[in-house]
Amino acid sequence: MTTLDDLPIRDDLRGRSPYGAPQKAVPVALNVNENTHPIPEAVAHDIVARVAAAILQLNRYPDREFSELRAAFARYLGHGLAADQIWAANGSNEVLQHVLQAFGGPGRTALGFAPTYSMYGLLSTGTGTAWVVGGRDDEFELTPETAVAAVREHDPDIVLLCSPNNPTGTPLSHETITAVVEAARGIVVVDEAYHEFADAGTPSALELLDGRPRLIVSRTMSKAFAFAGARVGYLAADPAVVDALRLVRLPYHLSALTQAAALAALAHSDEMLAMVDDIRGQRERISEELARLGFHPYRSGANFVLFGGVDDPAAVFTGLLERGILIRDVGLPGCLRVTAGTEAETTAFLEAIAGFAPGSASGAANRMDA
Amino acid sequence: MTTLDDLPIRDDLRGRSPYGAPQKAVPVALNVNENTHPIPEAVAHDIVARVAAAILQLNRYPDREFSELRAAFARYLGHGLAADQIWAANGSNEVLQHVLQAFGGPGRTALGFAPTYSMYGLLSTGTGTAWVVGGRDDEFELTPETAVAAVREHDPDIVLLCSPNNPTGTPLSHETITAVVEAARGIVVVDEAYHEFADAGTPSALELLDGRPRLIVSRTMSKAFAFAGARVGYLAADPAVVDALRLVRLPYHLSALTQAAALAALAHSDEMLAMVDDIRGQRERISEELARLGFHPYRSGANFVLFGGVDDPAAVFTGLLERGILIRDVGLPGCLRVTAGTEAETTAFLEAIAGFAPGSASGAANRMDA
Repeated sequence: MTTLDDLPIRDDLRGRSPYGAPQKAVPVALNVNENTHPIPEAVAHDIVARVAAAILQLNRYPDREFSELRAAFARYLGHGLAADQIWAANGSNEVLQHVLQAFGGPGRTALGFAPTYSMYGLLSTGTGTAWVVGGRDDEFELTPETAVAAVREHDPDIVLLCSPNNPTGTPLSHETITAVVEAARGIVVVDEAYHEFADAGTPSALELLDGRPRLIVSRTMSKAFAFAGARVGYLAADPAVVDALRLVRLPYHLSALTQAAALAALAHSDEMLAMVDDIRGQRERISEELARLGFHPYRSGANFVLFGGVDDPAAVFTGLLERGILIRDVGLPGCLRVTAGTEAETTAFLEAIAGFAPGSASGAANRMDA
Repeated sequence: MTTLDDLPIRDDLRGRSPYGAPQKAVPVALNVNENTHPIPEAVAHDIVARVAAAILQLNRYPDREFSELRAAFARYLGHGLAADQIWAANGSNEVLQHVLQAFGGPGRTALGFAPTYSMYGLLSTGTGTAWVVGGRDDEFELTPETAVAAVREHDPDIVLLCSPNNPTGTPLSHETITAVVEAARGIVVVDEAYHEFADAGTPSALELLDGRPRLIVSRTMSKAFAFAGARVGYLAADPAVVDALRLVRLPYHLSALTQAAALAALAHSDEMLAMVDDIRGQRERISEELARLGFHPYRSGANFVLFGGVDDPAAVFTGLLERGILIRDVGLPGCLRVTAGTEAETTAFLEAIAGFAPGSASGAANRMDA
């Protein structure tokens, strides 16, 4: 039998494993920060109608410039943005890959602040871009001083700022973003995948675009829009940045189905986003209850909570999974991450995690079991 | 205003233009080798039903391994293939990009035989792979001797064989394929995007996979399946090749909508492919009529015909466009390429092109007009 080692794969891929959050069928899946609320039925009907119309012309290539969709994203984002400032791709991973292909590559460097979204490193090495990391301050915060020091040290071509940060949930201040843009000579991406879950009144980095042509703000429909299965990420930036991305995208990269589904969802953004308040409420409930139980939840502006104070994360992960609850061990010592789901899912998680609370009798018992 | 030149894009992208077959709204569009027959209505209904079911779960990430779809492709292709030998992506361009990411990259070389599909060069340079070309024999044929000589000269890591070749339509013999696999130390891709349009009885390179773990056969649903808008390409190869591609794909790269639509289409492959015979008939009609008019049509196993004997391709292209007929100037001296459409579209093209026939009075008049 032929194995991977028998094939002439690229040397830097040898021994590597594919990205793999487990995809398990469990009653309560709170591991990949999906929006666990299904799409409202009335909206689903409209998406079906729009997709059905697209199917009748599926023999033709889709609009390579996805002009209607870019205009719809510009309207949704507001901030005076125009369609020529918008780009989109199959998930924000592909959006970021386009950015790395255009502005990174061999001999160039991308900087992030660990712990952060694990795909940044994979996307960088996948495009031949060197991936370097700076650290964070206490409680995973990122001050302007810490961020700028790392920019000065590494002189990166691209800086990837995750706001709020995944997997820690940490919000990012405008002060840090503007300081990084000023200190860096390269592109600065603010990844706002979870921005819609931020506390009311939290400003978007979209406010900072004007006059900063090297700043890019990326978003996704996977989270707040409950659209993870449709794979739609997008960004806003200077029109010249969009011109650069057009040089590296594959022609017709966004299918007619994707364009139709995204357009329909955007036409119902109010209803699609109605669940965001609920989810934010459940996130607050998780943070409060975990703190009460003696865990250490970190400050979160996202639809998930990272919490420390877990003696044995692998054992707690397995203990919850045995109860049908899937959360995420992101590899941070003493920490686990849980997505804020529906009220019922959150209740199931909180009841189960209570058995593993630090110092609790049952927690101790569970630890002895494990 | 910021321009592309003001931004820190990669040096090798400076001055480049994006891929761009014109997307114009014309009555008769025969320029990008689409299947101009819409999807049969009964099949469209079934696709809508399957996609509608997927929309209800769109808040969740799609099956990262697209297991059901891989099994369906294996069944469709036959030849004893199993699901673990199948890969798919958003169009065969992305399939080929995955191959180049896994087996090409900086310091490696991909070889093709010009003139051939223009995306091969763009995909190669986009992944940092050096793109080199060998030539072809008379009439754009590719003999084993010519192909093997180029392999010996360039010692490529990847060979891209287009069968039948785009933009020339030239069929490729099994002798050439097996000779290239034997001579090359690297990966050999046989791109069968247009295979379904080959003359009846033409064998597929799928027959050659057994015992050749470095051979890859790629296909697309864009052409025979009339599914260009859905963006679905796929390949068959040794399971170890599929393991390698899993290392470079973006997680969840195939949306739930794409998976559902492709599954529904594959369940109706007989009806979807019913138009292929018609299209092949129109291709033969085009070749015969163009020859009768004094043009030089090249041998084609695809849904298009490349023809020489055109004094001024740019003028003829414009002349046809003024009559509402869009064909393709692929940049080969004295040549144009036309897609075989429906019977009515083919008639419109043939009536219009007759006015530009070599030596014809109207052809001369038209040339003087231009």
